[in-house]
Amino acid sequence: MSEARYSIGVDLGGTNLRAAAIAPDGSVLSRLSGTTNLHAGRDAVVMDIVESIRNLRVTHGDAGLAGVGVVVPGFIEMKKGLIVGSNNLPQFEGYPVRDEISRILGAPVILENDANAAALGEKWIGAGRDVDSLVLLTLGTGIGGGIIVDGRILHGEVGMAGEIGHTTVYPDGNPCGCGSRGCLEKHASATAITAMARLMQLGENVTAADVYKIAQGEGESAKRARRIFESMGEALGIAIGNLVNIFNFPLYLLSGGPLPAWDLFAPPMTAEAERRSFTFRNTKTRIEKATLGGDAGLFGAACLGLEALQRRVVG
Amino acid sequence: MSEARYSIGVDLGGTNLRAAAIAPDGSVLSRLSGTTNLHAGRDAVVMDIVESIRNLRVTHGDAGLAGVGVVVPGFIEMKKGLIVGSNNLPQFEGYPVRDEISRILGAPVILENDANAAALGEKWIGAGRDVDSLVLLTLGTGIGGGIIVDGRILHGEVGMAGEIGHTTVYPDGNPCGCGSRGCLEKHASATAITAMARLMQLGENVTAADVYKIAQGEGESAKRARRIFESMGEALGIAIGNLVNIFNFPLYLLSGGPLPAWDLFAPPMTAEAERRSFTFRNTKTRIEKATLGGDAGLFGAACLGLEALQRRVVG
Repeated sequence: MSEARYSIGVDLGGTNLRAAAIAPDGSVLSRLSGTTNLHAGRDAVVMDIVESIRNLRVTHGDAGLAGVGVVVPGFIEMKKGLIVGSNNLPQFEGYPVRDEISRILGAPVILENDANAAALGEKWIGAGRDVDSLVLLTLGTGIGGGIIVDGRILHGEVGMAGEIGHTTVYPDGNPCGCGSRGCLEKHASATAITAMARLMQLGENVTAADVYKIAQGEGESAKRARRIFESMGEALGIAIGNLVNIFNFPLYLLSGGPLPAWDLFAPPMTAEAERRSFTFRNTKTRIEKATLGGDAGLFGAACLGLEALQRRVVG
Repeated sequence: MSEARYSIGVDLGGTNLRAAAIAPDGSVLSRLSGTTNLHAGRDAVVMDIVESIRNLRVTHGDAGLAGVGVVVPGFIEMKKGLIVGSNNLPQFEGYPVRDEISRILGAPVILENDANAAALGEKWIGAGRDVDSLVLLTLGTGIGGGIIVDGRILHGEVGMAGEIGHTTVYPDGNPCGCGSRGCLEKHASATAITAMARLMQLGENVTAADVYKIAQGEGESAKRARRIFESMGEALGIAIGNLVNIFNFPLYLLSGGPLPAWDLFAPPMTAEAERRSFTFRNTKTRIEKATLGGDAGLFGAACLGLEALQRRVVG
């Protein structure tokens, strides 16, 4: 059999559908991008995915294709290839998306959760390329998590591992839709930032980016805005301190919208993690920005396609 | 080469030194037990370990020996085989115990942390034999942790993974010697139980077992004692809820002195974990008693000896 020249990654988001042909060295051979036409219905979205894969195959040929990885938001029951509990893709709830794409395409595809894939992408070709194990936290509406152990995604029993956004940082903290209180994502997500901005009377409809702008100014509002990022950093530090105590991994990455405010939230975050983990203080432990931005999931998807070939060759 | 008929496990505790020859099916062929003569000095303890291994080898023969595992309290720098940060074995701090035993014995040995080995033992032949991945919490003076992922111990970068006793459950909780506050072990260990008993005026020198006895009685003291176990259970539930959200493993095990009080602390523990983890509520997740008791580490040590043979045969 010929050597793999590329793999296809597809990232199905609630807003955008993106696909790329990516070489084993991580270089992007070509890239397709469109909107996720959820209003056109589930079958239309599935056909858009299939078409994007077909287009890339036609362009780059079947002979050198290692595999296809498709990344979606929401939990994935790994054995069945089902999407469950995706707020962004309600029409896909319980739908056998992996097998349907495979059937129409006539080729196997690998399905993966977006945060898991992003963590794998960062490990493969991003901020984590020099380590074997890492944790990625994606800061957005909520906080997602992906855990890489010795180069592989940690899935857990049914694929729900990595729900770090719902670990408890304040047992009596803000209530969460998950049924708990004080979940990390209720104290450190982009949504948490805007909620705190309201509480601090910085405006009713400010975005996390607005709060960051206010924080860079002067006066009472700027002080309040900076206090918000301190609070966010402390919550992240508690959660990351726990992760360091549990995993003793060398690297913890953060990605997402609030990253530009790094200089404001990172110092209290690091101080808190340091205080809460003697492992942090006694081993080389880094908390850093992820580097692939919105492409991390796409790279992770392509990485899964490349691994698919390895599995077929080895096993 | 002949098939392995047994492996040797050694468990070096602060009080007792135990060793056993154990067959691949987990049956104990023979067992040695003595005290850890720390007052006689480090070299004497090392010689006691070597002698126990030699005795078992003489009894059972060299031909069928798969390997030797030695289990110690404290962190182990895995690559170097050093004990670091063991409160129970201060004389071994930074001492290359693995290589010294190997040198005197003339055979390779595998060194492992006690909680990690106990988790592996439970996975091999105890409460976790029907799963691939689990977490074990050992409740004692502190709280140790061992994490098994797909049948293997999770070590982390330098072997410090699994410090679940130092994950934060109450950010402003009891101060801990590690430098943090509200560590799980300051709210749920045997030591935490006796500290709470003092605070609840149940006696200055009561043990965790005493508190359990008081709790089984009637009246105000019994109520207070039961409240202690409720508090312990809540703290455990927060920490285990976090673990479930992070790992999505099917099984979380508890071992140690406070286990007889299971009926008092397990209901609030389970309720708290359930409330704090939708993964717990939506997947088959069990929190159970470990079953190997004080032998878990010894079995884990022997399991490592058996695995050593597999590694030699395969790689």
